Amino acid sequence: MILACLDMEGVLLPEIWINVALKTGVEELKLTTRDISDYDQLMKRRIEILHENKIDMKLIQSVIATLDPLEGATDFLNKLNEDFQVIILSDTFYQFAMPLMKKLGYPTLFCHDLIIDEQGYISNYKLRIADSKRKAVQRMKEINFKTIATGDSYNDTTMLSEADRGILFQPPQNVIDEFPQFPVTREYDELLAAFHQAAKELA
Amino acid sequence: MILACLDMEGVLLPEIWINVALKTGVEELKLTTRDISDYDQLMKRRIEILHENKIDMKLIQSVIATLDPLEGATDFLNKLNEDFQVIILSDTFYQFAMPLMKKLGYPTLFCHDLIIDEQGYISNYKLRIADSKRKAVQRMKEINFKTIATGDSYNDTTMLSEADRGILFQPPQNVIDEFPQFPVTREYDELLAAFHQAAKELA
Repeated sequence: MILACLDMEGVLLPEIWINVALKTGVEELKLTTRDISDYDQLMKRRIEILHENKIDMKLIQSVIATLDPLEGATDFLNKLNEDFQVIILSDTFYQFAMPLMKKLGYPTLFCHDLIIDEQGYISNYKLRIADSKRKAVQRMKEINFKTIATGDSYNDTTMLSEADRGILFQPPQNVIDEFPQFPVTREYDELLAAFHQAAKELA
Repeated sequence: MILACLDMEGVLLPEIWINVALKTGVEELKLTTRDISDYDQLMKRRIEILHENKIDMKLIQSVIATLDPLEGATDFLNKLNEDFQVIILSDTFYQFAMPLMKKLGYPTLFCHDLIIDEQGYISNYKLRIADSKRKAVQRMKEINFKTIATGDSYNDTTMLSEADRGILFQPPQNVIDEFPQFPVTREYDELLAAFHQAAKELA
Protein backbone atom coordinates (compact mmCIF):
# COMPACT_ATOMS: atom_id res chain seq x y z
CA MET A 1 0.00 0.00 0.00
CA ILE A 2 1.28 3.42 -0.96
CA LEU A 3 0.74 6.70 0.84
CA ALA A 4 -0.58 9.55 -1.32
CA CYS A 5 0.50 12.96 0.00
CA LEU A 6 -1.59 15.77 -1.43
CA ASP A 7 -1.10 19.49 -1.27
CA MET A 8 -4.46 21.12 -0.49
CA GLU A 9 -4.84 24.58 -2.08
CA GLY A 10 -4.52 24.33 -5.84
CA VAL A 11 -4.98 20.56 -5.79
CA LEU A 12 -8.27 20.04 -3.95
CA LEU A 13 -9.38 23.49 -2.81
CA PRO A 14 -9.18 27.06 -4.09
CA GLU A 15 -6.63 29.44 -2.55
CA ILE A 16 -8.16 30.50 0.76
CA TRP A 17 -6.49 33.90 1.37
CA ILE A 18 -7.23 35.05 -2.18
CA ASN A 19 -10.87 34.09 -1.79
CA VAL A 20 -11.12 35.84 1.57
CA ALA A 21 -9.69 38.93 -0.17
CA LEU A 22 -12.17 38.63 -3.03
CA LYS A 23 -15.20 38.02 -0.87
CA THR A 24 -14.41 40.71 1.73
CA GLY A 25 -13.30 43.19 -0.93
CA VAL A 26 -10.07 43.85 0.99
CA GLU A 27 -7.59 43.85 -1.90
CA GLU A 28 -4.53 43.94 0.34
CA LEU A 29 -5.30 40.45 1.63
CA LYS A 30 -4.20 39.19 -1.80
CA LEU A 31 -0.60 39.73 -0.70
CA THR A 32 1.44 36.55 -1.08
CA THR A 33 5.07 35.56 -0.57
CA ARG A 34 5.65 37.01 -4.03
CA ASP A 35 4.93 40.45 -2.48
CA ILE A 36 6.42 39.94 0.99
CA SER A 37 8.95 37.12 0.76
CA ASP A 38 9.34 36.65 4.53
CA TYR A 39 6.42 34.42 5.57
CA ASP A 40 6.36 35.65 9.15
CA GLN A 41 6.24 39.30 8.01
CA LEU A 42 3.51 38.41 5.52
CA MET A 43 1.38 36.72 8.19
CA LYS A 44 1.85 39.59 10.67
CA ARG A 45 0.79 42.04 7.93
CA ARG A 46 -2.26 39.94 7.09
CA ILE A 47 -3.26 39.90 10.76
CA GLU A 48 -2.91 43.70 10.91
CA ILE A 49 -5.05 44.09 7.79
CA LEU A 50 -7.75 41.89 9.30
CA HIS A 51 -7.81 44.06 12.43
CA GLU A 52 -7.84 47.29 10.43
CA ASN A 53 -10.86 46.02 8.48
CA LYS A 54 -12.59 44.53 11.53
CA ILE A 55 -12.55 41.06 10.01
CA ASP A 56 -12.77 38.57 12.84
CA MET A 57 -12.54 34.79 12.72
CA LYS A 58 -16.30 34.39 12.55
CA LEU A 59 -16.49 36.55 9.44
CA ILE A 60 -13.59 34.70 7.82
CA GLN A 61 -15.24 31.39 8.53
CA SER A 62 -18.53 32.57 7.06
CA VAL A 63 -16.62 33.51 3.90
CA ILE A 64 -14.81 30.18 3.81
CA ALA A 65 -18.10 28.36 4.29
CA THR A 66 -19.22 29.69 0.90
CA LEU A 67 -16.21 28.11 -0.85
CA ASP A 68 -16.30 24.67 -2.39
CA PRO A 69 -13.70 22.08 -3.37
CA LEU A 70 -12.37 22.53 -6.90
CA GLU A 71 -14.63 21.01 -9.53
CA GLY A 72 -13.88 17.31 -9.73
CA ALA A 73 -11.79 17.26 -6.53
CA THR A 74 -14.22 15.21 -4.46
CA ASP A 75 -14.59 12.63 -7.20
CA PHE A 76 -10.80 12.47 -7.63
CA LEU A 77 -10.31 12.00 -3.89
CA ASN A 78 -12.95 9.26 -3.71
CA LYS A 79 -11.21 7.35 -6.50
CA LEU A 80 -7.76 7.84 -4.98
CA ASN A 81 -9.05 6.51 -1.64
CA GLU A 82 -9.86 3.15 -3.23
CA ASP A 83 -6.22 2.32 -3.90
CA PHE A 84 -4.09 4.59 -1.73
CA GLN A 85 -3.92 5.84 1.84
CA VAL A 86 -4.34 9.60 1.59
CA ILE A 87 -2.93 12.37 3.77
CA ILE A 88 -3.25 16.05 2.93
CA LEU A 89 -0.13 18.06 3.69
CA SER A 90 -0.70 21.80 3.76
CA ASP A 91 0.68 25.00 5.21
CA THR A 92 -2.82 26.36 5.79
CA PHE A 93 -4.50 26.53 9.21
CA TYR A 94 -7.06 24.14 10.66
CA GLN A 95 -9.38 27.03 11.54
CA PHE A 96 -9.59 27.86 7.82
CA ALA A 97 -9.59 24.37 6.39
CA MET A 98 -11.96 22.36 8.56
CA PRO A 99 -15.26 23.60 7.02
CA LEU A 100 -13.84 22.57 3.64
CA MET A 101 -12.50 19.26 4.93
CA LYS A 102 -16.08 18.46 5.92
CA LYS A 103 -17.11 18.92 2.29
CA LEU A 104 -14.37 16.47 1.25
CA GLY A 105 -15.49 13.81 3.77
CA TYR A 106 -12.83 14.64 6.39
CA PRO A 107 -9.61 13.36 4.86
CA THR A 108 -6.67 13.46 7.28
CA LEU A 109 -5.00 16.88 7.18
CA PHE A 110 -1.61 17.88 8.53
CA CYS A 111 -1.33 21.69 8.78
CA HIS A 112 -0.98 24.48 11.37
CA ASP A 113 -2.97 26.39 13.99
CA LEU A 114 -4.12 29.98 14.32
CA ILE A 115 -4.30 31.67 17.69
CA ILE A 116 -7.60 33.46 18.24
CA ASP A 117 -7.88 36.15 20.92
CA GLU A 118 -10.78 36.72 23.28
CA GLN A 119 -12.38 39.21 20.91
CA GLY A 120 -12.45 36.53 18.21
CA TYR A 121 -9.66 38.02 16.10
CA ILE A 122 -6.62 36.18 14.80
CA SER A 123 -3.81 37.33 17.10
CA ASN A 124 -1.06 35.05 15.87
CA TYR A 125 -0.29 31.75 14.19
CA LYS A 126 1.67 28.72 15.23
CA LEU A 127 3.51 26.64 12.65
CA ARG A 128 3.44 23.07 13.91
CA ILE A 129 6.86 22.57 12.38
CA ALA A 130 8.94 24.32 9.71
CA ASP A 131 9.23 22.62 6.30
CA SER A 132 6.23 20.59 7.41
CA LYS A 133 5.34 18.88 4.15
CA ARG A 134 8.78 17.48 3.48
CA LYS A 135 9.22 16.38 7.10
CA ALA A 136 5.91 14.53 7.12
CA VAL A 137 6.93 12.57 4.01
CA GLN A 138 10.29 11.84 5.60
CA ARG A 139 8.66 10.40 8.73
CA MET A 140 6.31 8.26 6.64
CA LYS A 141 9.27 6.81 4.77
CA GLU A 142 10.91 5.99 8.11
CA ILE A 143 7.97 3.72 8.93
CA ASN A 144 8.44 2.05 5.53
CA PHE A 145 5.71 3.65 3.50
CA LYS A 146 6.29 4.21 -0.17
CA THR A 147 5.09 7.73 -0.92
CA ILE A 148 3.75 9.59 -3.94
CA ALA A 149 3.25 13.33 -3.53
CA THR A 150 1.48 15.93 -5.61
CA GLY A 151 1.32 19.71 -5.51
CA ASP A 152 0.95 22.73 -7.73
CA SER A 153 3.56 25.21 -6.61
CA TYR A 154 7.12 26.03 -5.73
CA ASN A 155 6.61 25.39 -2.02
CA ASP A 156 5.59 21.79 -2.77
CA THR A 157 8.80 20.86 -4.51
CA THR A 158 10.73 19.83 -1.39
CA MET A 159 7.87 17.44 -0.57
CA LEU A 160 7.83 16.15 -4.15
CA SER A 161 11.60 15.61 -4.05
CA GLU A 162 11.44 13.82 -0.70
CA ALA A 163 8.69 11.44 -1.84
CA ASP A 164 9.46 8.28 -3.81
CA ARG A 165 7.60 9.89 -6.71
CA GLY A 166 6.48 13.49 -7.22
CA ILE A 167 3.76 14.69 -9.60
CA LEU A 168 2.96 18.31 -10.48
CA PHE A 169 -0.69 19.33 -10.88
CA GLN A 170 -1.51 22.50 -12.84
CA PRO A 171 1.84 24.11 -12.01
CA PRO A 172 3.00 27.52 -13.27
CA GLN A 173 5.58 27.54 -16.06
CA ASN A 174 8.53 28.52 -13.83
CA VAL A 175 8.01 25.41 -11.68
CA ILE A 176 7.76 23.19 -14.77
CA ASP A 177 10.99 24.69 -16.09
CA GLU A 178 12.92 24.38 -12.86
CA PHE A 179 11.74 20.86 -11.99
CA PRO A 180 11.70 18.86 -15.23
CA GLN A 181 12.04 15.62 -13.23
CA PHE A 182 8.37 15.71 -12.15
CA PRO A 183 5.60 14.69 -14.56
CA VAL A 184 3.09 17.48 -15.20
CA THR A 185 -0.66 16.82 -15.02
CA ARG A 186 -3.51 19.21 -15.76
CA GLU A 187 -6.74 17.26 -15.22
CA TYR A 188 -7.80 14.99 -12.35
CA ASP A 189 -8.01 11.98 -14.68
CA GLU A 190 -4.40 12.58 -15.66
CA LEU A 191 -3.37 13.03 -12.02
CA LEU A 192 -5.09 9.77 -11.04
CA ALA A 193 -3.41 7.96 -13.93
CA ALA A 194 -0.04 9.41 -12.87
CA PHE A 195 -0.59 8.05 -9.35
CA HIS A 196 -1.33 4.59 -10.72
CA GLN A 197 1.66 4.74 -13.07
CA ALA A 198 3.97 5.77 -10.20
CA ALA A 199 2.53 3.01 -8.01
CA LYS A 200 3.27 0.46 -10.74
CA GLU A 201 6.87 1.69 -10.92
CA LEU A 202 7.24 1.41 -7.15
CA ALA A 203 5.75 -2.10 -6.92
CA MET B 1 -5.09 20.24 16.47
CA ILE B 2 -4.63 16.81 17.98
CA LEU B 3 -4.07 13.52 16.19
CA ALA B 4 -6.41 10.70 17.20
CA CYS B 5 -4.80 7.27 16.71
CA LEU B 6 -7.37 4.49 16.69
CA ASP B 7 -6.90 0.76 16.84
CA MET B 8 -9.21 -0.85 14.26
CA GLU B 9 -10.47 -4.29 15.33
CA GLY B 10 -12.36 -4.05 18.59
CA VAL B 11 -12.67 -0.26 18.31
CA LEU B 12 -14.32 0.29 14.90
CA LEU B 13 -14.60 -3.17 13.33
CA PRO B 14 -15.21 -6.73 14.48
CA GLU B 15 -12.27 -9.16 14.66
CA ILE B 16 -11.62 -10.21 11.07
CA TRP B 17 -9.96 -13.63 11.51
CA ILE B 18 -12.60 -14.75 13.99
CA ASN B 19 -15.35 -13.76 11.60
CA VAL B 20 -13.66 -15.51 8.69
CA ALA B 21 -13.51 -18.61 10.91
CA LEU B 22 -17.18 -18.29 11.86
CA LYS B 23 -18.42 -17.65 8.33
CA THR B 24 -16.32 -20.34 6.65
CA GLY B 25 -16.94 -22.85 9.44
CA VAL B 26 -13.21 -23.53 9.72
CA GLU B 27 -12.83 -23.57 13.51
CA GLU B 28 -9.05 -23.70 13.44
CA LEU B 29 -8.90 -20.20 11.97
CA LYS B 30 -9.94 -18.95 15.40
CA LEU B 31 -6.36 -19.53 16.57
CA THR B 32 -4.89 -16.38 18.05
CA THR B 33 -1.61 -15.41 19.70
CA ARG B 34 -3.11 -16.86 22.85
CA ASP B 35 -2.86 -20.30 21.18
CA ILE B 36 0.36 -19.80 19.18
CA SER B 37 2.32 -17.01 20.83
CA ASP B 38 4.81 -16.56 17.98
CA TYR B 39 3.02 -14.31 15.46
CA ASP B 40 5.02 -15.55 12.49
CA GLN B 41 4.23 -19.19 13.33
CA LEU B 42 0.57 -18.27 13.81
CA MET B 43 0.38 -16.55 10.41
CA LYS B 44 2.14 -19.45 8.64
CA ARG B 45 -0.29 -21.88 10.27
CA ARG B 46 -3.27 -19.74 9.22
CA ILE B 47 -1.98 -19.68 5.63
CA GLU B 48 -1.66 -23.51 5.70
CA ILE B 49 -5.20 -23.87 7.04
CA LEU B 50 -6.53 -21.62 4.26
CA HIS B 51 -4.80 -23.81 1.63
CA GLU B 52 -6.03 -27.05 3.25
CA ASN B 53 -9.58 -25.73 3.12
CA LYS B 54 -9.25 -24.23 -0.38
CA ILE B 55 -10.04 -20.76 0.93
CA ASP B 56 -8.57 -18.24 -1.51
CA MET B 57 -8.41 -14.47 -1.25
CA LYS B 58 -11.59 -14.03 -3.28
CA LEU B 59 -13.55 -16.20 -0.85
CA ILE B 60 -12.08 -14.38 2.16
CA GLN B 61 -12.99 -11.03 0.65
CA SER B 62 -16.55 -12.18 -0.04
CA VAL B 63 -16.79 -13.14 3.63
CA ILE B 64 -15.33 -9.82 4.77
CA ALA B 65 -17.72 -7.95 2.49
CA THR B 66 -20.60 -9.28 4.63
CA LEU B 67 -19.12 -7.72 7.78
CA ASP B 68 -20.06 -4.27 9.01
CA PRO B 69 -18.45 -1.71 11.30
CA LEU B 70 -19.39 -2.17 14.97
CA GLU B 71 -22.73 -0.61 15.84
CA GLY B 72 -22.20 3.09 16.43
CA ALA B 73 -18.65 3.10 15.03
CA THR B 74 -19.43 5.17 11.92
CA ASP B 75 -21.28 7.76 13.97
CA PHE B 76 -18.43 7.90 16.49
CA LEU B 77 -15.87 8.36 13.71
CA ASN B 78 -17.91 11.12 12.07
CA LYS B 79 -18.08 13.02 15.34
CA LEU B 80 -14.38 12.49 16.08
CA ASN B 81 -13.51 13.82 12.60
CA GLU B 82 -15.05 17.19 13.46
CA ASP B 83 -12.44 17.99 16.10
CA PHE B 84 -9.47 15.69 15.53
CA GLN B 85 -7.30 14.43 12.70
CA VAL B 86 -7.82 10.67 12.66
CA ILE B 87 -5.45 7.89 11.67
CA ILE B 88 -6.22 4.20 12.16
CA LEU B 89 -3.24 2.16 13.32
CA SER B 90 -3.73 -1.57 12.92
CA ASP B 91 -1.78 -4.80 12.50
CA THR B 92 -4.33 -6.13 10.03
CA PHE B 93 -3.76 -6.30 6.26
CA TYR B 94 -4.98 -3.87 3.62
CA GLN B 95 -6.40 -6.74 1.56
CA PHE B 96 -8.72 -7.56 4.47
CA ALA B 97 -9.50 -4.07 5.67
CA MET B 98 -10.18 -2.04 2.54
CA PRO B 99 -13.77 -3.24 1.89
CA LEU B 100 -14.54 -2.22 5.48
CA MET B 101 -12.68 1.09 5.21
CA LYS B 102 -15.02 1.91 2.35
CA LYS B 103 -17.96 1.47 4.73
CA LEU B 104 -16.28 3.90 7.16
CA GLY B 105 -15.74 6.56 4.45
CA TYR B 106 -12.07 5.68 3.83
CA PRO B 107 -10.31 6.96 6.94
CA THR B 108 -6.50 6.82 6.63
CA LEU B 109 -5.23 3.39 7.66
CA PHE B 110 -1.68 2.34 8.51
CA CYS B 111 -1.35 -1.47 8.44
CA HIS B 112 0.39 -4.28 6.51
CA ASP B 113 0.24 -6.18 3.23
CA LEU B 114 -0.54 -9.76 2.29
CA ILE B 115 1.22 -11.45 -0.59
CA ILE B 116 -1.18 -13.21 -2.93
CA ASP B 117 0.10 -15.92 -5.30
CA GLU B 118 -0.95 -16.44 -8.91
CA GLN B 119 -3.64 -18.91 -7.91
CA GLY B 120 -5.21 -16.22 -5.71
CA TYR B 121 -4.14 -17.76 -2.40
CA ILE B 122 -2.38 -15.95 0.43
CA SER B 123 1.22 -17.13 0.16
CA ASN B 124 2.80 -14.88 2.75
CA TYR B 125 2.49 -11.57 4.57
CA LYS B 126 4.73 -8.55 4.87
CA LEU B 127 4.80 -6.48 8.03
CA ARG B 128 5.48 -2.91 6.98
CA ILE B 129 7.42 -2.45 10.20
CA ALA B 130 7.57 -4.21 13.57
CA ASP B 131 5.88 -2.52 16.54
CA SER B 132 4.07 -0.45 13.90
CA LYS B 133 1.48 1.28 16.09
CA ARG B 134 3.94 2.65 18.61
CA LYS B 135 6.38 3.74 15.90
CA ALA B 136 3.70 5.63 13.99
CA VAL B 137 2.78 7.58 17.14
CA GLN B 138 6.45 8.28 17.76
CA ARG B 139 6.92 9.73 14.26
CA MET B 140 3.81 11.90 14.63
CA LYS B 141 5.18 13.31 17.87
CA GLU B 142 8.44 14.11 16.07
CA ILE B 143 6.54 16.42 13.72
CA ASN B 144 4.99 18.10 16.78
CA PHE B 145 1.56 16.54 16.87
CA LYS B 146 -0.08 15.97 20.21
CA THR B 147 -1.52 12.46 20.12
CA ILE B 148 -4.36 10.62 21.82
CA ALA B 149 -4.58 6.88 21.19
CA THR B 150 -7.25 4.31 21.86
CA GLY B 151 -7.34 0.53 21.68
CA ASP B 152 -8.95 -2.48 23.28
CA SER B 153 -6.19 -4.99 23.86
CA TYR B 154 -2.78 -5.84 25.17
CA ASN B 155 -1.06 -5.21 21.83
CA ASP B 156 -2.31 -1.60 21.87
CA THR B 157 -0.66 -0.71 25.15
CA THR B 158 2.73 0.31 23.70
CA MET B 159 0.88 2.73 21.40
CA LEU B 160 -1.19 4.03 24.32
CA SER B 161 1.95 4.54 26.39
CA GLU B 162 3.76 6.32 23.56
CA ALA B 163 0.86 8.72 22.92
CA ASP B 164 0.40 11.88 24.99
CA ARG B 165 -2.80 10.30 26.30
CA GLY B 166 -4.05 6.71 26.08
CA ILE B 167 -7.65 5.53 26.45
CA LEU B 168 -8.85 1.93 26.70
CA PHE B 169 -12.07 0.94 24.93
CA GLN B 170 -13.90 -2.21 26.04
CA PRO B 171 -10.70 -3.85 27.29
CA PRO B 172 -10.49 -7.29 28.98
CA GLN B 173 -9.97 -7.32 32.74
CA ASN B 174 -6.29 -8.33 32.60
CA VAL B 175 -5.46 -5.22 30.56
CA ILE B 176 -7.42 -2.99 32.96
CA ASP B 177 -5.53 -4.51 35.89
CA GLU B 178 -2.10 -4.23 34.34
CA PHE B 179 -2.53 -0.69 32.97
CA PRO B 180 -4.40 1.31 35.61
CA GLN B 181 -2.95 4.54 34.16
CA PHE B 182 -5.35 4.48 31.19
CA PRO B 183 -8.99 5.53 31.57
CA VAL B 184 -11.44 2.76 30.65
CA THR B 185 -14.39 3.47 28.34
CA ARG B 186 -17.17 1.10 27.32
CA GLU B 187 -19.49 3.07 25.03
CA TYR B 188 -18.70 5.35 22.08
CA ASP B 189 -20.18 8.36 23.87
CA GLU B 190 -17.78 7.74 26.74
CA LEU B 191 -14.86 7.28 24.35
CA LEU B 192 -15.68 10.54 22.57
CA ALA B 193 -15.94 12.35 25.91
CA ALA B 194 -12.59 10.87 26.97
CA PHE B 195 -11.00 12.21 23.77
CA HIS B 196 -12.37 15.68 24.48
CA GLN B 197 -11.27 15.51 28.11
CA ALA B 198 -7.75 14.45 27.09
CA ALA B 199 -7.64 17.22 24.47
CA LYS B 200 -8.58 19.76 27.14
CA GLU B 201 -5.74 18.50 29.35
CA LEU B 202 -3.27 18.78 26.47
CA ALA B 203 -4.34 22.30 25.43
